[in-house]
Order: sequence, then structure tokens, then C-alpha cells
Amino acid sequence: MTQAYHGLTEAGLLHSRVGRGTFVAALAAGAQGPGAVDPARGFAWGGLLARRARAVRLPAALAADALASAAYDFRGGQVDPASLPVADLKRAFRVALESSALLASHRDPLGWPPLREAVARALLARGIRCGPEQVAIVNGAQHGLDLLGRVLVDPGETVVMEQPGYFGAAIAFGAAETHLLGVGVDAEGLRTDELARILRARRVKLVFTTPAVQSPTGVVMSPRRRRELLALADEYQVPIVEDDYDSELRYGGPPVPSLLNEDAARRVIYLGTFTKALFGAIRVGYMVAPPDLLWRLALTRWASDMQTDLVTQAALAELLESGAFERHVRRVRMVYSARRTALLAALARHMPEGTSWIQPAGGNAVWLTLPAGSDGPALHDRAAAAGVAYTRGDAFFLDAAGAGNLQLCFARLEPSQIEEGIRRLAALLALPGGFDA
Amino acid sequence: MTQAYHGLTEAGLLHSRVGRGTFVAALAAGAQGPGAVDPARGFAWGGLLARRARAVRLPAALAADALASAAYDFRGGQVDPASLPVADLKRAFRVALESSALLASHRDPLGWPPLREAVARALLARGIRCGPEQVAIVNGAQHGLDLLGRVLVDPGETVVMEQPGYFGAAIAFGAAETHLLGVGVDAEGLRTDELARILRARRVKLVFTTPAVQSPTGVVMSPRRRRELLALADEYQVPIVEDDYDSELRYGGPPVPSLLNEDAARRVIYLGTFTKALFGAIRVGYMVAPPDLLWRLALTRWASDMQTDLVTQAALAELLESGAFERHVRRVRMVYSARRTALLAALARHMPEGTSWIQPAGGNAVWLTLPAGSDGPALHDRAAAAGVAYTRGDAFFLDAAGAGNLQLCFARLEPSQIEEGIRRLAALLALPGGFDA
Repeated sequence: MTQAYHGLTEAGLLHSRVGRGTFVAALAAGAQGPGAVDPARGFAWGGLLARRARAVRLPAALAADALASAAYDFRGGQVDPASLPVADLKRAFRVALESSALLASHRDPLGWPPLREAVARALLARGIRCGPEQVAIVNGAQHGLDLLGRVLVDPGETVVMEQPGYFGAAIAFGAAETHLLGVGVDAEGLRTDELARILRARRVKLVFTTPAVQSPTGVVMSPRRRRELLALADEYQVPIVEDDYDSELRYGGPPVPSLLNEDAARRVIYLGTFTKALFGAIRVGYMVAPPDLLWRLALTRWASDMQTDLVTQAALAELLESGAFERHVRRVRMVYSARRTALLAALARHMPEGTSWIQPAGGNAVWLTLPAGSDGPALHDRAAAAGVAYTRGDAFFLDAAGAGNLQLCFARLEPSQIEEGIRRLAALLALPGGFDA
Repeated sequence: MTQAYHGLTEAGLLHSRVGRGTFVAALAAGAQGPGAVDPARGFAWGGLLARRARAVRLPAALAADALASAAYDFRGGQVDPASLPVADLKRAFRVALESSALLASHRDPLGWPPLREAVARALLARGIRCGPEQVAIVNGAQHGLDLLGRVLVDPGETVVMEQPGYFGAAIAFGAAETHLLGVGVDAEGLRTDELARILRARRVKLVFTTPAVQSPTGVVMSPRRRRELLALADEYQVPIVEDDYDSELRYGGPPVPSLLNEDAARRVIYLGTFTKALFGAIRVGYMVAPPDLLWRLALTRWASDMQTDLVTQAALAELLESGAFERHVRRVRMVYSARRTALLAALARHMPEGTSWIQPAGGNAVWLTLPAGSDGPALHDRAAAAGVAYTRGDAFFLDAAGAGNLQLCFARLEPSQIEEGIRRLAALLALPGGFDA
């Protein structure tokens, strides 16, 4: 068995209490379904696995996160289904299916040309000036990370990422068999002093960062840190991967520039996605990079799955061109702004002393630190029993840290549900004798 | 520069004569667009490439195939856009966007459950009995090959494939840095005597085959060869990858069973796709494999792009469940049957002595062998100038073979266009002094 499978077993996910609708639940169902393999028959597939497949690991905290549905669901990566522009989406798909180039299965591993053009235009609003020849469409930001790992990093080479940081990046670069090193995050974002120390000590192949809305803390990288980061990239000739996953969602304050804006030396690779601003059912994201890197990515991309679903690409192009996408973003920004306010108010009202959290300037989640000495994993189980789900903080760390943290996503719940969910969570924290099992 | 780039340059594809709508053309456009990089600025990305990225190679013959549109387009991998069930597709996407589970961005790297169930049901018609827990949805068959290469084959390990054989498999397994070995094909399909010799001599990690409609020859694997192939897989404990890409298109003769039917020992991994029977704009295929292998594939799949576009998956599930997909397959089978007849008649009428071809029992292409001593590459250029495009035979070989072969796809042209295209091609072959430049 691989380590990942061990993790699943240890997390109890191979028992019947798992729910549907999540990755791990699906794995668990697959591993114990009616067609489950009699070990006496057929191959022992585990013995045939490639080294790189054994390198793919799902954090135990994510496995633990894959429980059944919860009444108060603060788990990350969600959007508000009720806010989706369903009528606009239906129209966009209908229009897409009227395109003769689409019906003739136009092929382009860099993406559907009208979508690449629409993305380049939309990025202007983000202050990014680029032509469609610098844009490649991918199957969401995760796919961009996977391609970058495959194309730029040899097994054993070092990739640096923020700690805490987006677990999807850790999984993608882990699958590329890279050596992952963490660099700390504080109120100004990625700690460039720590990064400088790492760069002096060893060769680094890529630095992964989320400057506009640090994942998971919600911190915005300060102008000073941005300058320092770019200067370090120059000095050590290290490409920077800027994951701008949630920049559409910003709540007051001056707009946060993209690192790409300030990147005269073209060492920033920019990732954006429609899976957050719209919804995760649509697997479309985009990468902005120098054309000579893009077509190298395109070769690997063609080898792996040729191109992103063209019907969806064409529908998104239509959604962008008609203005429906922008209207949708304006609408959910208001919806999420109210939910963010409700969450922050509920936290202030209910959380016991010693709990702290960061007011996020953007995104759709709040990073919370429990009072010192709290048992995070035990709280997670108790909360689940009380109908409250969230993402465990240790999912965002490469090492054993993060047990005292949690991420609360406010996208999916109404303000009244947010209030009740936080009240329940705080009550568990305030239990006499703490909340340990 | 990588070898692939060398190939593009040598093929003249970085000049302005390239057209749109093809992979290589897109690459070429990217490499010379207005945003093209000044080498004095930024990184020399080529120096940063991982070894596995340098292993991705596009056959020169495919590069040559990427010319501008042609009046008589026999290039492979196409379907008839005029036969597409556009109204049914529009309805299916509309219905998909009404699913609340979809709008809530249901997550499952093995695929949308209703589609996995519909695929399992549809496979019954192919004689395959499997449950949805044995089905994983992927982004087309190419993606299935990529995942198998990543999960099952370490760099330097050996994969055996038919020669001639599907170039997409060579590209995917090449990207996995595997050692590719060819095994011959004759009128009964894959030559099991050659495979036995290879298996005696070295350890083989996977055997790739297209038994129902051999790609590109169209030959059907005989029952005797099937038995021998499965016996060899048992004896040497080698998994078989069965790419059943075009089994929906069959023109008379008894149905060809799937290898999976006869696979008591579960050593066959089955790949099917909607990109051929429907169209390539939809990047959805499926894999049938033992659940313990499937969830290992799912881990790598999640790390790479989480899941296949859910809107498209749900639309396909609706298309299958409503019967619209089956109606479409019945309709195109008739359309393509008439085009196949027209192509075979035109070849018989026009081709000079010494030309031979195989009557395909299925699929949508004919494999042709030019008279001995013919200069295939020169003919390809002359044909392009005469408005006739096809896929060069050497695209299907790992070595320098195939210059005397070509693949003619009959899916996209009306019978009258087929007649005229073949007349033009034959006229070039019959030119005094041959057709060498």
C-alpha cells in the first residue's frame, strides 16, 4: 500500500461513515465497492506502481476533511451555488454549440482563440497588459501547477512555497517528485528574509506564492515584499509562480497589483482560474507566461490530454464577451462581502479569549488560530458531530504544524447559518475541560 | 532548442505559411507572435526545462501534417461536423445546468456518478460487464494513456506498442520517459510471436494495443491472437492497455469482442472515448480497470487537474440516458459507411498498379501502401499543393519506417469530394517520372 492509502485507512475513511461528493469518499467507495478486487486474482497493482505515482500524497488533514455533508459547511474551495448565473450559463453553452469552428473540433493546446483574447482583455482590469499569445488555457489552476512541475522541475529539485500555503501546490509539486521547502508568512505576506536565506544556501527551481490573497491566511503581500521578492528572483534567476486564484474577490482597500505588472524581466508565471469566481464544475483556468515557455508547456499539455474541453472554453468566452461574467463577479462580491462581515462579527461575538483571526482583504475564507494548547484534530471531530465542517489548518503545512489553525470559508452559508455555525464551534471551544475527547 | 522545436523548424512550420486550427500552427504562432521574447530579456527558459519535458516529442510527420486547411481533407482524427446532434447537445447542456449537485461543484476525480453509471450500462452493448466502480472518467483517451504512463511506468522501463501504431500513445508514453518498443501488425493484428520474443528477452511494463480497429491499419485482431495475447499477459504478468477508440463504428461482420470480455485475470485496462464517436471538442473518455488500480490513478489525476469538466460530463450523461447518443452513433455509422464505400470505390477506380490498401471493418480511415519506391514525403507536399491533405504514414512509426504509407480518413468529406480528392491524389502518383520533386 502507498502512504496515501495508509493515510486513508488511518483516517478511518475506508469505513462506511464516509459520504459522497468528495475525492476521498470516492476513493473509499472504489476501494470497497462490489467490484473490489480479490487479491488472489489478477495483478498486485501496488507492486507495479511507478515511483512518481508513489510520490503523490494526500494530506491526512484533507482526508479527514472528506466527511459527509454538514449543516454548517465552512470547508474551503466552495462557492455559493444559489448565486450562479444559471440562465447566462445556459445561454453561453447554447451559443458555443452554434460555432462552426467548435463543431469542427478546432484544435489548439494553448486554448480556444476567442477565450484567450477575452482573458487577455479581462486581465487589463487587473492591470495586466498581455497579448493572447501569452495566454494558455488550462484545466484550472491545479492543472497549471501540474504542468509547471512536469515541465520545469526535475525529481529532487527544490520548489519553495509559502507556509502555510495552498495544499494543491504541495500535491502537484509533490507528484513531480520535487523537494518542497516552506517559507514563512507574516502580516506582509511571504517572508523574503527567509527566502533569501534559502536562496543563498541552495539552488531553487521555482517559488510558489499567492500575493493578492495569501492562501490560506488571506494576507496581502506588501509593496516592499513584492519588490524584494522580484529582486531575489532576478538575483538568483528563479521563476516565480503567482497564483492569483481569488483576486476577483476584494473587499475595500486599494486594488492589489499583480506581481506580473511589475515583472520587467519576465520571470513571473501567472495563474488565474474560473473555478473560484464562477464554480468548480468548470475546469478552466489560464496561465500567462512568455511565449517561449508557453509552447514548451503546450507540448507536454498536448501529450497529456490535447486541450481543455472546447465547449466549455467557448461558453466562457461568450460569458466574458457578453459582460455576464463581470456582472456575476460584481454580484458575488456583494454576497460574499456580507457573509464575510457576518463571519467576522460572529467570531468577535462568540470566540473565547485567546482565539485570533486575520481579517481577509479578499478571497472567501478566514484563517483562525485557536487558543494556545488547543487540540485541533479533536475539535474537528467534535465539530463534525455538531454539524460544523471546516478545513483543518494542518492541510496547509508541509510538516506537522497547523494543528492549532483552521480555515473557515464563508462562501456557501447564509449569514444566519454562519452565526449559528460559529456559535456551535465556539461552544465546543468553551466546554469545561476543553474539547479533547 | 528541444528536438521537437528542431523538428518544427525543419518542417518549415515557423514560417508564415502555417494555417490555424492545428496544434503545431498554434505553437508556431506562439513562438513568433508579437509578444515573442527578446532573448536578451528574462530567462532562457530552455535551460530550465526538466528532463521529462525534453522527452516530449512531436513526430516530424505530424508537424508536416499541420498545414493550412485543405479542400480535400483526409487527415485523421476528424468527424463530420454536419452530422453532429447539435439540438440534442444544446438540450443536454441545458439539462446539465439544472442539476443542483453540479451547481454545488460535486467533486469526484473518478467522474460524475451518473456518467460512470451510464458508461457502465452502455458498455453492456459492447459485451463488457462492469460496475460504475470500475469506470473512471478522463479527459479523452489521450489523458488515460498519460495517466497510465505516469502511474505505472518508471523512466527507462519498457512499453510495447503496435507498429504501425497510434502516435498519441507514443507521445504519451514518450513523455513518461519510457523505452518504447514496436511489435509488428499483420492481417490478424498484433503479432504475438514477436511479442513473445520481446517478453522472453526483457521485462515489459505495459503492452498497448487497438484490437477492435487497429490504429492506423483498420485490421481486426483475430480470436487466435487475442487468446495468445492474453496468455502472454498471464505468463509474463504484463498489463494490456486496450484502446477501443472507434469500436462504435463497425461496418458489417460479426461484432468484435473486447479483450476485456475475455480477461478473467483482470490484466486488461480498457480505454474508450467520446471524442471520436461524438467530436473532439468534448474532452471526455473513460477507463475501465480494477478499482484498486483506479483509485491509484485517481490520486495522480487529482494532483494534476482534480476532475474532468463537470458540465460536459453531466451533459454526456444526459445524452446517453436520453438515447440521443445511441441515435447519433446509428446515424453516423450510416453516413460513414457510405463514405467508406465511396473511398474504397475511388481507390479501386483511380489508384495505379502497385498501390494497396486494407478494407477497414471499422473506424473512419483507410491505410494505404504506395507502390514500391514511392517518395511519401514528396507526395505529401505535392498533394497539399493540389488541395489534398492526409496523415503521413511515418507518423505511426517509432523509427524511420512508413514513408510509403498514408492514412486517409473518410469522415469529413462527402462522397463526391472523396472521389475528386482521390482522383487528384492518384493523378500525382501517375505523373510521368513519378512525383518526386
